[in-house]
Amino acid sequence: MRQSHLFGRTLRDAPAEAQTPGHQLLLRAAVARPLASGLYTWLPLGFRVARKVEQIIREEEDRVGAQELRLPVITPAEYWKETGRWDALEPVTFRTRDHGGHEYMVAYTHEELVMHHARTEIQSYRQLPAVVYHFQEKGRDEARPRAGLLRVREFVMKDAYSIDKDMEGLERSYWLQYEAYARSFERMGLKAISVESDTGNMGGDVAHEFQVLTDVGEDRVVMCTACDHRANMEKARRRIDVAPAGAAAVPAPSEVPTPGIKTIPDLAAFLHAPAADLLKSLLFRLPSGERVLVLLPGDRDLGEPKLRKLLGVPNLAYAGDADFVALGAVAGSMGPVGLGSARVVVDASVEAGKPYVTGANKPDTHLRDVVLGRDYDGERADVHDVREGDVCPRCGGRLAIERGIEVGNIFKFGPYYADKMNATYLAEDGTRKPLMFGSYGIGIGRAVQTIIETNHDSRGIVWPMSVAPFEVHVVALPGKDAAVRGAAEAVVAEIEAAGVEVLYDDRDESAGVKFADADLLGIPFRVTVSTRGLKAGTIEVKARSRDDVENVPRAGAVARVVDLVTHERARYRLPAAPLGASTPIGTPA
Amino acid sequence: MRQSHLFGRTLRDAPAEAQTPGHQLLLRAAVARPLASGLYTWLPLGFRVARKVEQIIREEEDRVGAQELRLPVITPAEYWKETGRWDALEPVTFRTRDHGGHEYMVAYTHEELVMHHARTEIQSYRQLPAVVYHFQEKGRDEARPRAGLLRVREFVMKDAYSIDKDMEGLERSYWLQYEAYARSFERMGLKAISVESDTGNMGGDVAHEFQVLTDVGEDRVVMCTACDHRANMEKARRRIDVAPAGAAAVPAPSEVPTPGIKTIPDLAAFLHAPAADLLKSLLFRLPSGERVLVLLPGDRDLGEPKLRKLLGVPNLAYAGDADFVALGAVAGSMGPVGLGSARVVVDASVEAGKPYVTGANKPDTHLRDVVLGRDYDGERADVHDVREGDVCPRCGGRLAIERGIEVGNIFKFGPYYADKMNATYLAEDGTRKPLMFGSYGIGIGRAVQTIIETNHDSRGIVWPMSVAPFEVHVVALPGKDAAVRGAAEAVVAEIEAAGVEVLYDDRDESAGVKFADADLLGIPFRVTVSTRGLKAGTIEVKARSRDDVENVPRAGAVARVVDLVTHERARYRLPAAPLGASTPIGTPA
Repeated sequence: MRQSHLFGRTLRDAPAEAQTPGHQLLLRAAVARPLASGLYTWLPLGFRVARKVEQIIREEEDRVGAQELRLPVITPAEYWKETGRWDALEPVTFRTRDHGGHEYMVAYTHEELVMHHARTEIQSYRQLPAVVYHFQEKGRDEARPRAGLLRVREFVMKDAYSIDKDMEGLERSYWLQYEAYARSFERMGLKAISVESDTGNMGGDVAHEFQVLTDVGEDRVVMCTACDHRANMEKARRRIDVAPAGAAAVPAPSEVPTPGIKTIPDLAAFLHAPAADLLKSLLFRLPSGERVLVLLPGDRDLGEPKLRKLLGVPNLAYAGDADFVALGAVAGSMGPVGLGSARVVVDASVEAGKPYVTGANKPDTHLRDVVLGRDYDGERADVHDVREGDVCPRCGGRLAIERGIEVGNIFKFGPYYADKMNATYLAEDGTRKPLMFGSYGIGIGRAVQTIIETNHDSRGIVWPMSVAPFEVHVVALPGKDAAVRGAAEAVVAEIEAAGVEVLYDDRDESAGVKFADADLLGIPFRVTVSTRGLKAGTIEVKARSRDDVENVPRAGAVARVVDLVTHERARYRLPAAPLGASTPIGTPA
Repeated sequence: MRQSHLFGRTLRDAPAEAQTPGHQLLLRAAVARPLASGLYTWLPLGFRVARKVEQIIREEEDRVGAQELRLPVITPAEYWKETGRWDALEPVTFRTRDHGGHEYMVAYTHEELVMHHARTEIQSYRQLPAVVYHFQEKGRDEARPRAGLLRVREFVMKDAYSIDKDMEGLERSYWLQYEAYARSFERMGLKAISVESDTGNMGGDVAHEFQVLTDVGEDRVVMCTACDHRANMEKARRRIDVAPAGAAAVPAPSEVPTPGIKTIPDLAAFLHAPAADLLKSLLFRLPSGERVLVLLPGDRDLGEPKLRKLLGVPNLAYAGDADFVALGAVAGSMGPVGLGSARVVVDASVEAGKPYVTGANKPDTHLRDVVLGRDYDGERADVHDVREGDVCPRCGGRLAIERGIEVGNIFKFGPYYADKMNATYLAEDGTRKPLMFGSYGIGIGRAVQTIIETNHDSRGIVWPMSVAPFEVHVVALPGKDAAVRGAAEAVVAEIEAAGVEVLYDDRDESAGVKFADADLLGIPFRVTVSTRGLKAGTIEVKARSRDDVENVPRAGAVARVVDLVTHERARYRLPAAPLGASTPIGTPA
């Protein structure tokens, strides 16, 4: 490919809106361009990377026996209504109608559609398991698209779906996908770790995310510093070592005047008490009108995703003045004792039998010696955020928190979708049983940008060989010298004849511009054919990841380059490890 | 691939809604399944075909120097508004809004978006020509989806776009695409012919369609029986040999009583005159309120697409009672003489100087001896349908009309989009000039179904080797016999080791069911491993396109099959003919 005719120009400076190093390089190196907020076009260089990422995933999906198909982007409302997701997903999806008034969703994912096909195509246990996947556009009406391809409003996802006859089969399919994911990320040069995660609006119970740790990630990953326990913030738990309830009797609650004190820090200072001895009271109002009082120790923060999941709502709304009036509550002095009728959620961190200071539901007044189970009651639930230094629920070690980018997720639904969609098959025993379901997603664009976020230096991208847009960058210096061009084009032809992908910088630009662009584009090897080199009979070869250059005699230059490429390619190959015995034979490699 | 686990079941009978043989086979052979009217899922077998069709097109686009990229499906309104297509395409597109109220179109095509990128990426003549393409979903809100994948509401199109500095460059890009199309269709087993076509709602002037002739096509193609002139019905012209105006003076118009006569056939019978001597008057009302009278000889039919293009409207609406009253016209006796104010279009077939019978704008009355240029006037335009037996405009031969399916189209826009979108580049002479534009489309699904429409017999599909979902179908008979299975699996492994794609029918079904399915699926070669064959030491090999079978000794069977496959593959290869000298080197093959 001649660089002079490459569609997409490099930018000397990153546009002001670029939020992360990867976002800046994505734009500067002509990987992608926005058409609107969160809507991107892959330019030719970037699309070559995206296709390689796709092909790696395709090979690993095929390897575990998955079959590629393709579902449409425009999906009829009727299927989404069967599971209730037509309404649930409204805030985050794009909708359309045809001119006859029928409603459609730009697909958010494709569970409902795959399950519909499964219930019509699969009649008997003899057809199971079946695993299908596709690469297809998804629409997400993100309120805040972020950092280039990290959070967008349209993106291609590889989504796979496993259909099994029982939980044992699902278990096997789930871990085969886990294996395919681990291999895919490794092959594309991503250091992904798996963490337990919440299922969110997907339904079901068991899920893992694959996270790549980097400071630009917007997810928080909780990791044990002693064992391999890992979870995302929504799912993270800690071990709560509750002291046995004190034998000494706690006096009855008594009022304390607290003039002007409305926050936990102020109260702690005023009473000279640790925040852990105070009770934090939060009041929410659900869309149904129900009011929910949440109680946490004063030193813990609410884990919003946990509470949302417990309450079954997509968003949390704090209660308003009218709610306070109706319950007889006072902002800044709220507490569980003497409050009007509300659902009460007591965080698992609140110790039974321990006296806490709470609001008294009177202005400028709190209550001492308020005891759970004696003075008030409520449902117990883990609704607090885990934090650095908490105790690992598995091994008792200390937890750390890191930032990460979620590059993939896998969900084990069990019969969740089958039950809602009446999707059954004829089992060996003659009964009809639900199709056990799992789904497995990787966003291609996010994966590509995460590769950039974790493979660059101050001068540009440093592509892993397996996904680089080209493998070798041949630079002619100067580009307008006929002898140099002739020699460079011969080198290009010879390298390409060996099956290596070459970008050829034939432009009439200075060495400075050309080398800066080569560093920015990040192709693994740069081969410079120059007037000076031709005089000396040598060609300069440089790895993007190293600072030193090598001057190779012209006669051996192409062999040297091909050898370097071959070695670098091999770094991203994985051995063909055995799979379980049920893998279909004849799966295309 | 084991057939027992293949996702997608074959159907013994075609669903009642299947309209054409290809539509029936598409459903029966598990190529695709509808999710709603005009919205289809590719099942795994069909998707393998679609991917091969894509790959053939990709190779031919790369061969002519085009660069693959990918634009989004959800496209912002602002770009479409620059060319006026936001409004023009409303009736045939899907629209959506985000939760902030911004409007988007599910892309109908991508001209505006590509032109936007071109005007920001391309700064100088040195970057031209640039040709880009992508495979991406299009949305079309078709009122009447038809015949499976022939007319749908969402489909993947390969759309290519050429950007040149002048008309000479565009001319070259256009014919390179023409060549890529001809090669692509030939390689996928389609006998496509090119015909001149109208540009419709795409803008610009010059366009060709690639048509595959078949009775199930909904397009009509006009073809000369003597030369290679071909055009679609919208664009077709005929040579009109007008006799010189008669020397004899034509008498002034005179009224004829025509009681109860309201149609051309009735009038011709009543007057014992040929229809060609009568004048057909049609009255339309435009959205602007303007009224248009169209006059044609009584023996010619209106060419609606020609009139739509002349009037610049997407649809034609006949005038109503109020219009007749306003113009003083009488339904069934309308004519140009004495009519109120209207735009008058006189078809090119109407002969100047010749006396015609027309309506008299009085009930039950017509006028004789009405002469164009003497008794009335109007703008001349070719707005009639060409028909079988008309005279070829190029050679004077006779025209025939055939049915066809449009499998591709190419458009030469010139500066049409650049002018509307202010897309210019810095030319060699220092001035800014418009980017010359062309676009080039192939619908993947329609191509696949057209292959089926033209490659099947009464038992099923007969795939061309180049696009067959698998190359060899190995059938084990009976499927539950351990010795047979063992032998069949060895054959599968050996054939696959030679790089041949195999579907392996391991199901526990009768020979009748398995052979019927093999014929239905249409994989080029069937290899049967049976109890009887094993006893005789032979394996049965049969080509889908032939009735005879061949019993090959086991030892040579795999070599024989691989040999047959290799020969059949070669039929769809094309020589690497030379291109113009400006083709970028290094284009991936």
